[in-house]
Amino acid sequence: MPNQKLSADPVDIENLLGLNPTIKPHATLKPTIDTKKDRKYWKRNAEHNCSSGCDLENNFEDIKHTTLSERGALREANRCLKCADAPCQKSCPTQLDVKSFITSIGNRNYYGSAKMIFSDNPLGLTCGMVCPTSDLCVGGCNLYASEEGPINIGGLQQFSTEMFMKMRIPQIRDPCLTPLDQLPDCYKSKIGFIGCGPASISCATFLARLGYSDLTIFEKEDFLGGLSSSEIPQFRLPFNVVKFETDLMTDLGVKIESGKKLSTEPGGLTLSSLKDQGYKCVFIGIGLPDPNKEPMFNGLSTESGFYTSKSFLPLVSKSSKSLCCKSKLPKLTGSVVVLGAGDTAFDCATSALRCGAKRVYVVFRKGFNNIRAVPEEVEVAKEEKCEFIPFCSPNKVLVNNSGQITGMEFFRTELNENNEWIEDKEQTLRLKCNYVISAFGSGLSDCAVRDALHPIKLNKWGLPEVDPITMKTSEEWVFAGGDIAGQAQTTVESVNDGKTASWYIHKFIQETNGLTVPKDIALPKFHTPIDLVDISVELCGIKFPNPFGLASAPPTTSAAMMRRAFEAGWGFCVTKTFGLDHDIVTNVSPRIVRGTTSGPVYGPGQGSFLNIELISEKYARYWCKCIKELKQDFPDRVIIASIMCSFNKEDWQLLAKMAEEAGSDALELNLSCPHGMGERGMGLACGQDPELVRNICLWVREAVKIPFFAKLTPNVTNILDIAKAAKEGNADGVTATNTVSGLMGLRADGSAWPSVGEKKLTTYGGVSGNAIRPIALRAVTHIARNLPGFPILATGGIDSAEAGLQYLMGGASVLQVCSAVQNQDFTVIDDYITGLKALLYLKSLDVFKNWNGQSEPTPKHQKGKVLQVADIIGMHLPSFGEFNKRQQEIKQLFYKNLKEEQRLENQLVERVLNLAETSKIPKIKDIIGLAVDKIGTYKNLSQKEQVVALIDEEMCINCGKCYMACNDSGYQAIEFDPKTHLPKVTDACTGCTLCLSVCPIIDCITMVERQTPYVPYRGC
Amino acid sequence: MPNQKLSADPVDIENLLGLNPTIKPHATLKPTIDTKKDRKYWKRNAEHNCSSGCDLENNFEDIKHTTLSERGALREANRCLKCADAPCQKSCPTQLDVKSFITSIGNRNYYGSAKMIFSDNPLGLTCGMVCPTSDLCVGGCNLYASEEGPINIGGLQQFSTEMFMKMRIPQIRDPCLTPLDQLPDCYKSKIGFIGCGPASISCATFLARLGYSDLTIFEKEDFLGGLSSSEIPQFRLPFNVVKFETDLMTDLGVKIESGKKLSTEPGGLTLSSLKDQGYKCVFIGIGLPDPNKEPMFNGLSTESGFYTSKSFLPLVSKSSKSLCCKSKLPKLTGSVVVLGAGDTAFDCATSALRCGAKRVYVVFRKGFNNIRAVPEEVEVAKEEKCEFIPFCSPNKVLVNNSGQITGMEFFRTELNENNEWIEDKEQTLRLKCNYVISAFGSGLSDCAVRDALHPIKLNKWGLPEVDPITMKTSEEWVFAGGDIAGQAQTTVESVNDGKTASWYIHKFIQETNGLTVPKDIALPKFHTPIDLVDISVELCGIKFPNPFGLASAPPTTSAAMMRRAFEAGWGFCVTKTFGLDHDIVTNVSPRIVRGTTSGPVYGPGQGSFLNIELISEKYARYWCKCIKELKQDFPDRVIIASIMCSFNKEDWQLLAKMAEEAGSDALELNLSCPHGMGERGMGLACGQDPELVRNICLWVREAVKIPFFAKLTPNVTNILDIAKAAKEGNADGVTATNTVSGLMGLRADGSAWPSVGEKKLTTYGGVSGNAIRPIALRAVTHIARNLPGFPILATGGIDSAEAGLQYLMGGASVLQVCSAVQNQDFTVIDDYITGLKALLYLKSLDVFKNWNGQSEPTPKHQKGKVLQVADIIGMHLPSFGEFNKRQQEIKQLFYKNLKEEQRLENQLVERVLNLAETSKIPKIKDIIGLAVDKIGTYKNLSQKEQVVALIDEEMCINCGKCYMACNDSGYQAIEFDPKTHLPKVTDACTGCTLCLSVCPIIDCITMVERQTPYVPYRGC
Repeated sequence: MPNQKLSADPVDIENLLGLNPTIKPHATLKPTIDTKKDRKYWKRNAEHNCSSGCDLENNFEDIKHTTLSERGALREANRCLKCADAPCQKSCPTQLDVKSFITSIGNRNYYGSAKMIFSDNPLGLTCGMVCPTSDLCVGGCNLYASEEGPINIGGLQQFSTEMFMKMRIPQIRDPCLTPLDQLPDCYKSKIGFIGCGPASISCATFLARLGYSDLTIFEKEDFLGGLSSSEIPQFRLPFNVVKFETDLMTDLGVKIESGKKLSTEPGGLTLSSLKDQGYKCVFIGIGLPDPNKEPMFNGLSTESGFYTSKSFLPLVSKSSKSLCCKSKLPKLTGSVVVLGAGDTAFDCATSALRCGAKRVYVVFRKGFNNIRAVPEEVEVAKEEKCEFIPFCSPNKVLVNNSGQITGMEFFRTELNENNEWIEDKEQTLRLKCNYVISAFGSGLSDCAVRDALHPIKLNKWGLPEVDPITMKTSEEWVFAGGDIAGQAQTTVESVNDGKTASWYIHKFIQETNGLTVPKDIALPKFHTPIDLVDISVELCGIKFPNPFGLASAPPTTSAAMMRRAFEAGWGFCVTKTFGLDHDIVTNVSPRIVRGTTSGPVYGPGQGSFLNIELISEKYARYWCKCIKELKQDFPDRVIIASIMCSFNKEDWQLLAKMAEEAGSDALELNLSCPHGMGERGMGLACGQDPELVRNICLWVREAVKIPFFAKLTPNVTNILDIAKAAKEGNADGVTATNTVSGLMGLRADGSAWPSVGEKKLTTYGGVSGNAIRPIALRAVTHIARNLPGFPILATGGIDSAEAGLQYLMGGASVLQVCSAVQNQDFTVIDDYITGLKALLYLKSLDVFKNWNGQSEPTPKHQKGKVLQVADIIGMHLPSFGEFNKRQQEIKQLFYKNLKEEQRLENQLVERVLNLAETSKIPKIKDIIGLAVDKIGTYKNLSQKEQVVALIDEEMCINCGKCYMACNDSGYQAIEFDPKTHLPKVTDACTGCTLCLSVCPIIDCITMVERQTPYVPYRGC
Repeated sequence: MPNQKLSADPVDIENLLGLNPTIKPHATLKPTIDTKKDRKYWKRNAEHNCSSGCDLENNFEDIKHTTLSERGALREANRCLKCADAPCQKSCPTQLDVKSFITSIGNRNYYGSAKMIFSDNPLGLTCGMVCPTSDLCVGGCNLYASEEGPINIGGLQQFSTEMFMKMRIPQIRDPCLTPLDQLPDCYKSKIGFIGCGPASISCATFLARLGYSDLTIFEKEDFLGGLSSSEIPQFRLPFNVVKFETDLMTDLGVKIESGKKLSTEPGGLTLSSLKDQGYKCVFIGIGLPDPNKEPMFNGLSTESGFYTSKSFLPLVSKSSKSLCCKSKLPKLTGSVVVLGAGDTAFDCATSALRCGAKRVYVVFRKGFNNIRAVPEEVEVAKEEKCEFIPFCSPNKVLVNNSGQITGMEFFRTELNENNEWIEDKEQTLRLKCNYVISAFGSGLSDCAVRDALHPIKLNKWGLPEVDPITMKTSEEWVFAGGDIAGQAQTTVESVNDGKTASWYIHKFIQETNGLTVPKDIALPKFHTPIDLVDISVELCGIKFPNPFGLASAPPTTSAAMMRRAFEAGWGFCVTKTFGLDHDIVTNVSPRIVRGTTSGPVYGPGQGSFLNIELISEKYARYWCKCIKELKQDFPDRVIIASIMCSFNKEDWQLLAKMAEEAGSDALELNLSCPHGMGERGMGLACGQDPELVRNICLWVREAVKIPFFAKLTPNVTNILDIAKAAKEGNADGVTATNTVSGLMGLRADGSAWPSVGEKKLTTYGGVSGNAIRPIALRAVTHIARNLPGFPILATGGIDSAEAGLQYLMGGASVLQVCSAVQNQDFTVIDDYITGLKALLYLKSLDVFKNWNGQSEPTPKHQKGKVLQVADIIGMHLPSFGEFNKRQQEIKQLFYKNLKEEQRLENQLVERVLNLAETSKIPKIKDIIGLAVDKIGTYKNLSQKEQVVALIDEEMCINCGKCYMACNDSGYQAIEFDPKTHLPKVTDACTGCTLCLSVCPIIDCITMVERQTPYVPYRGC
């Protein structure tokens, strides 16, 4: 037997290895006919030449291509370039700061992202779900100029706001604004809003943020949300989202009265009656309630098989969203013709499939190139096997004797040579069908409503004349927004109309009360109790407004940059290191290069940089003068002067005194610069020897009263020895760590990058950024464990609030940033601040115990879509080929049999306001060093408590990464099914965790407690 | 003046900063109407509701969405999961090892990738360009189950094979096979191929690789390539590609005779005549030459305005590809109707636009869901504003008095209730048009051709009966492939038919000559002179077949794994470290975790790992027994035993002797394990003290004769001191370096990952992978510079041939790998070997001096498409909104005026065979340490030779990353144009290079020589 060799795999392992990659000695031959079969077996995308429909009856699951899981969101956010003057923001009707909210997602600061979104758009989640982004933000994405294509902005917006929704935290008014009870009386003016759709919700929210306290929305339906609830299908916008966003509005005190309609009919509201009731201002946001109906449809009813989009979609919504317990889903059978080529037409088409239609034809007057709907909507209809018939103008509906629709007749349209559309009445086309849904847009035709608008002026379409800049009607106290106002064509534009109107309503109210508003528009941002969290920290008697500051590095190359950093919100700055005039330096170039530690990927968020830049080229007197100026202008911010001399007492004392006299809050002694300076007996040349460090500290201590910190190099055998020396030298603390000495790489010609001059020479440089975080984090915790209470300023790959928190828990008091700013700009501070506040807030609430920072425990999903029918589809079906079809069939059966009541159950989300007790929210000082006692020696680790891997077969995407890693780097303890490509962990698992480490899906593999004692295999 | 402060930016800088991001204190308000305008200005994607066509007349530029620049290819390759038992490979007709060729691209080993591709598919570049991948490889991609979607496999295939094309290196026969002159005579049998299309080229190539030396292809046209040349449009498949691939075939000696047609007509070839000429075997690959033509088209000619795809496309090709200097592009005007819904129909439609058609209608019998063409083809036609008319069956062509086509009449088709397609002759539809192109497929109807096939049996369609497994016709000496053989529907399937036939032709020839072929099909792979490069290396008298081996780490956990590694091709293995029985260890779990140094990205190619795994859990006697076994079975491979003891002479000597007696080629003394072992006085506890290192080495030297190496820890102040100590202890060399001690991260609850047991305790672990490469590379070069000639075994982030070459040039002799295998599997060795061979080969040729390894100097491009009209469109137009339109207009004008001769010039590519003189190809020993003298002290770097940044405005994608980085981390030396978003470097540039480091586009920014002396700004 060949396998008796000790060094050969036994038979069972050989079998298990069957699918492990091997190098084939020859080309692989397989006849074409065989591969054709195999291909179908493994196929994951749709067969494109196939009209057999997918049966979607009763299935209102999320269909959005944009929906993202956390993994998807992180990848997408980290792919975003975060451009300067970003065109995405310029193309967003509400001017969302897209670049910034994506930055926060990339940093796992989902609260910060949501705050950014809701600040400019109170319906940020709705818009993330329904915006036709290819026409808006995404249309301007600079990544269109790269092969990987534009960012899924809508999906990201949905992701972070949804994560915030799950935090269930209420909105509050900006606490920095004048409190309600101290505002002038005019803030108590009654303001009314007609229609509780996106425009009104937006307008009321901003007015409430401004401080208006008597705001009432009147809604004709029993449910809120306007078109979002009644017309946009559940599979694109679930009702709980509408509920969540109206709740955020009512958090601010806005009142809602339902069942109140604009109408001259009895019980209706009119502008006059509202005026009589004391309303000082009214906002009209009623949409366009009446369908445009061609005369050929007169006399046709639902019973005949005729719907307009305005009658069909609300019926579908009421049932599928359980807005009304009596409403049932319309039952359609056979063929359905949908007329129109706008977004609504496509919503009707895909909704019709869910009502039981077997075939759906979307018929439109012009060609494909003229479809008004956005491509993403058309795409979905196409995937769901709707058919499209262009160049057809409806002529008449065909009806049988019993009044049932049997078909439609169309005239052919064409573009003549002058590029005009003409109808050729000689050419008719008939289409058999059982239902017709007309989606030809809508207007305002109900006289009772129109009359109720008296006395405002209407335009030729019978709609209010509205100033598009202020949203004001002909009556100065009446404003309008949304569809009725003539500008908005999308939900987000309606939201923006409401936002625009809010400012001019504010202006109107203030001015009619003899007050003024600032010239620069100042609409308040979104706030929650999280923003109240105090993240200030004290260190050696110095108060830092927040723990984030700029390290002594390129971002503090000049004092003007420090000024701008303070303006952006940074808590402190460490100057670029300066020396005495006789030590003045001149840089070489090139000197700062990208890291290659994240592979050959060119793009945003470099994982590391290497630099051979020296200390500041500027004189000490420049720095001292600037420190004085900055301290005057920013008395609450902290300035730490970074200084460097050679091992010379006089120099150190002279320079330290100069910096103290300039008004520095503290000093940082640069004993660690790894390149260039060392050769002059400075920097690291001083910092690698405890004796020198101790002496320098003693000298400086003798010279100055202000606190000072020694900046340590990681390029030593034991950094603790150096920290101890600094302590013995009476330093007030240490900064850990400077960059790690390295050589980033060589080109194929042997030259390094950076290399200087014709000779292409280089020297070892300093590696910074995320690549060195494990080293710096080790250094910080190592010092903190051994010198408890000795202050540490951390630096090394701090690129987010999460990374900052790690250093704080590891024992640091404040946090220095450089590479993350090099990768982006000074505004990242905003993300760090909101992120850290959110982390502290969530830490204080028990309900978030299972969350990892701001991430909820990963729900079972594929592509971010929660697997709702997990139980019925079983655990062992992958999602390709036949398996996928089987999954679909099981789902279809499930939905067919789903009762309306069950749907109601699924959907109800309880509103729980998560409010932390302020006293329980940790202060920065409470968390400093919190993690230190978890780190210790190896011998303290339990050998009894072992784990093994567990693979979730539902989340698995069948890549087999775990299998290969386990085979060639581990224990051959994962089987890989040749038919299903589902991996399974065997008893041989030793819990090494490599499989989890290489798995591309978050939490698809988890490590669970081992049930049997672990007995290592010793060989022989 | 506010700006008189020294610490404030002067006015000009303030202006420059105008577009730099700032944190807004309020929500941003802009009325909907204004954003609508702005959006258009910044829009990058197409207006979707717009039928005004793009004028493409005469423009045959590449239109493939899949084309990739190097940056795009690297990103895509690094995104690929490289799955186990990958479904992409199973779905490829030629069974390309997709996972492996993408691995090579990700590692910048473009030769390795191309070799992998051409091995299985001699038309690999053609197929990369024209394969309907969504139906083939891509259709099975597991990433369909993730939000980022499947891999652009076709684009990657095109990229690496195109890069290889630019290397202009010929194909040779596998030198390991029996040389031609030693093969039996039957290899000289005459074999004929009819038609020089993909099937024949593939078949002839494989037969030539097998050793057949009298192969002749007969082609009826004057040009080669078959359908690839005559029908597939230039904008999808340029002719130089066809030329390149036929040249690769003729490199192997295949002869081509053009102007030779299969026909019974005079001068034609017939099967009988070929037999008479002594052909032992014939392969028929003539495609389907005749169009399927409906009777309604009888009598219509080109002059009337009628074409079939078979008459139209070759005309377009002959002119646009300059296949024939007399051929002119057909001139079309007005409207064109294309009939059919296959890929060819869409090629006709898009080609028609380039011949001047103003409007193109694609008309087809069934619905959208039944379109036969692949979605990617349909998409392009849609983008180019072709219109689609479904449900129309052609009835007749309308012609005016002068015989000119004026329109077409169709019957309406529909799907009846039984799901059958019926034609409703009562409903007719007329479409005005000037031209009709029928694309209803093709067949074999020419009797002269059919008769020439006598005596092979034809089936009911008049085509040869072919066994789909062997491609054999009814005559055992006649084979067929491609369209005529009935299986292939795509080029790649034709290629596979030829590949399949080649083996059975081989079998037929051998067997008729009384010989046999092996049972396991053994078609030879693609070879070039690069494969002849010798990469063996000698170290301390030990010969390594290649310098790549497995480090002492998880991939050598068991001897069976080492066996498999040797089978895969690894040059050497270092065993997992073992100790004496009294030092036996037991691991904790979890213990190997993913790195976070590349950000929160879950996916392939982790940039680092951290582990707290101990040395081997197996007994020394197991390892010794296995070493003996392995040396017996793999005498040409090197086994290094890694051993560890505490600081005890007897232990070290005992263990070293055991390992020597087992037959180890050498020993590695593990003096560097950073976790766990140190606490026991082992590993790093020994390795941080030169004294201990020296002593241990002396002990071991005393005990054994074989070479031994001390494995060093990077966790020391000066690794050189330790290396010196090892040298003084008579070690034969050192391994640099072990992992770097670190703490990967903490969760929000303060626990680390990995953390063990309920208490969630952890200890510092070892960081490995790319993140530590700069540190290890520094260590290796530092030792090499100071101890020249002292052997170094390198380890630390070696994940490619390129990375390996860096270490070799840095002074290492052999290379140890771990993390890269953890990220993938043992087969990566194949990529490393071909990669290193290619790098050495290219190094020896002057023409590649400007290349960076295997990368050509970046051509000016956007999205990988070379900017051919750069000069005429000027340098200052970005590609969005109006600017984009202007670019298009200028291009249109350019192409309209392009003369046929000019096109010819553009396209001709000279074939230059790059053959290196063997003596000039460096050996590994020649490159060891080559880069060492480029690395030195800072003071050697020139301050006189400074550089500044230069931005290429054509390649710029307008993201402004350079601008932001320069502002907030540099010198405010880049302006950003508010209108064009084009950045420009000012005189203030100091050459720091940060802009280049953050730019996402390779070589968009370059550093160029500074023309004025550099005078640093000293402040005051």
